[in-house]
Amino acid sequence: MSNNKQVRLAKRPMGMTDASTWEFTTKDIPTPAEGQFLCKIEYISLDPAMRGWVNDAKSYIPPVEIGAVMRAGTAGTVIESKHPDYKEGDFVVGSLGVQEYAVSDGSFCYKSDTFGLPKEKFLGVLGMPGFTAYFGLIDVTNPQPGETLVVSGAAGAVGSVVGQIGKIKGCKVIGIAGGPEKCKMVVEDYGFDACIDYKAGDVKAGLKEHCPKGIDIYFDNVGGEILDLCLARIRFHGRVSICGAISQYNSTEPIKGPSNYLSLLVNGAKMEGFVVLHFRERYMEAAKQLGEWMMAGQLKSKETVIEGIETFPDTFNRLFSGDKTGKLVLKP
Amino acid sequence: MSNNKQVRLAKRPMGMTDASTWEFTTKDIPTPAEGQFLCKIEYISLDPAMRGWVNDAKSYIPPVEIGAVMRAGTAGTVIESKHPDYKEGDFVVGSLGVQEYAVSDGSFCYKSDTFGLPKEKFLGVLGMPGFTAYFGLIDVTNPQPGETLVVSGAAGAVGSVVGQIGKIKGCKVIGIAGGPEKCKMVVEDYGFDACIDYKAGDVKAGLKEHCPKGIDIYFDNVGGEILDLCLARIRFHGRVSICGAISQYNSTEPIKGPSNYLSLLVNGAKMEGFVVLHFRERYMEAAKQLGEWMMAGQLKSKETVIEGIETFPDTFNRLFSGDKTGKLVLKP
Repeated sequence: MSNNKQVRLAKRPMGMTDASTWEFTTKDIPTPAEGQFLCKIEYISLDPAMRGWVNDAKSYIPPVEIGAVMRAGTAGTVIESKHPDYKEGDFVVGSLGVQEYAVSDGSFCYKSDTFGLPKEKFLGVLGMPGFTAYFGLIDVTNPQPGETLVVSGAAGAVGSVVGQIGKIKGCKVIGIAGGPEKCKMVVEDYGFDACIDYKAGDVKAGLKEHCPKGIDIYFDNVGGEILDLCLARIRFHGRVSICGAISQYNSTEPIKGPSNYLSLLVNGAKMEGFVVLHFRERYMEAAKQLGEWMMAGQLKSKETVIEGIETFPDTFNRLFSGDKTGKLVLKP
Repeated sequence: MSNNKQVRLAKRPMGMTDASTWEFTTKDIPTPAEGQFLCKIEYISLDPAMRGWVNDAKSYIPPVEIGAVMRAGTAGTVIESKHPDYKEGDFVVGSLGVQEYAVSDGSFCYKSDTFGLPKEKFLGVLGMPGFTAYFGLIDVTNPQPGETLVVSGAAGAVGSVVGQIGKIKGCKVIGIAGGPEKCKMVVEDYGFDACIDYKAGDVKAGLKEHCPKGIDIYFDNVGGEILDLCLARIRFHGRVSICGAISQYNSTEPIKGPSNYLSLLVNGAKMEGFVVLHFRERYMEAAKQLGEWMMAGQLKSKETVIEGIETFPDTFNRLFSGDKTGKLVLKP
């Protein structure tokens, strides 16, 4: 049966991806071999990191090859199994790519209860973005009560969780997001103390107003000018967690390094990077804690679900235009 | 008696300092008041950090004011005292400025035995540069046996000590220095495993050759391109200690931030800054340990002593031209 729609990498993009970056194919639904299961993919995760995966560059995982199905996180249901640990009906979160069906031997997958929650949350707050927020804030920066935490990409899948964990840990939390609606959501729905609208202009003045004593922790999702502005206000023994640099991912120029990095020297501060995969052995710890906070009403999340695998090229670019709320998910 | 020659800041420099940056004055030798002592300054420390102190910029200490005696580390002898803790003949290390005599109440000073060693060493390996190396390597990066340590400014007052401590700690140590003579000295006298001559060109190839598995620790004295090249080779859980950025101090352009900082993300690595003053309560720990290593023959040092306070404008710029060996000291 030729009815497994897929999105493959057609060519490596320069700058923003567009329709020509991708190739649509329709293949037979594959048959699981011994030790494999077949998964019907119900939700596909769209993440800024995917932009990096299509560059031909050494990174923490190999680039997606030209002609291969685009790599992506997925949530779905086992519909046929020859794998001893998976049975029909199991809910599976993993990395099965931008397609409707996939077989897997269980690598990069885990089974989960849905706890009656919408399945797309397992690609957001209860999945990689949530784990990213958890380890990138708690392990990398060790937030203490009373400290000032600034989070860029505050309305996003990672940033919104970072700020909420910061509040749980007793920090004063200031978000940075684009546009009045997102800023309102960050404060009213996610409970940040304030949110600076970078599209309205003066981030520097906003940081000065909301962080009068400076910044103890900056969780950076964006890089570029905002990283520099936060470095300029970093406090003694401050910590910067480098999670991403969405302002730079589509740049055709060399990456802009932080001119104010010597603020680290003056303030005895540190800037530390991480990839959530570095913490893979502790995912269940994060899932358990995030789930508990969620059940207790301390952690909220939003998802934007777009239907139709054929919308992938445009939907993917919403990550960079900011035209989405919280976690962006594709329903194929 | 009008015979205390001094160097004062005449105006704030743009780029390199020159004769017009400084003003020579001759004043009376001051008389100590109750609670003060008079010090004859025998050695004046010349350090790259001094270039930062004459900028009108917020930093870890206030800028030197226009018209003030230039701030500098000093070593000298008490020649008159009305201070209960200091007596005539005491050897005093402190921050008494670019002049021949100064009174002090003991702030920013300490008394020391000379242990029969040349006094200028107390401005180098047994003073701030030595303490800088000690805390900036051991506390900031926690070097482990078998790790690969790269040190820029390897022939300098700080870098030469960093590399030797790295060897004591069991690291493979690669230096970066300018010119074949310095590189020879770094390997033959200081015992580094290799030294890359950045003036000869291809630092990237040198790092690839000498650090085939990558860099665990980079101790950065220079910033600029070399910082970027080292970031590109940083290993998983690598550490970058930001001690200085001598390549940028005289720049009239904005500081060049490290374009490769996202290597921190990919490798779960950190970049941490420090100022030796942050460790001031532990100076005696460093002095004791450095002294022990020196007595045991595990730690060597060189000093370049230039005579004549009137040479200060030119002598200071030797820090940036590289025309000196080890610690640069002025004998007024």
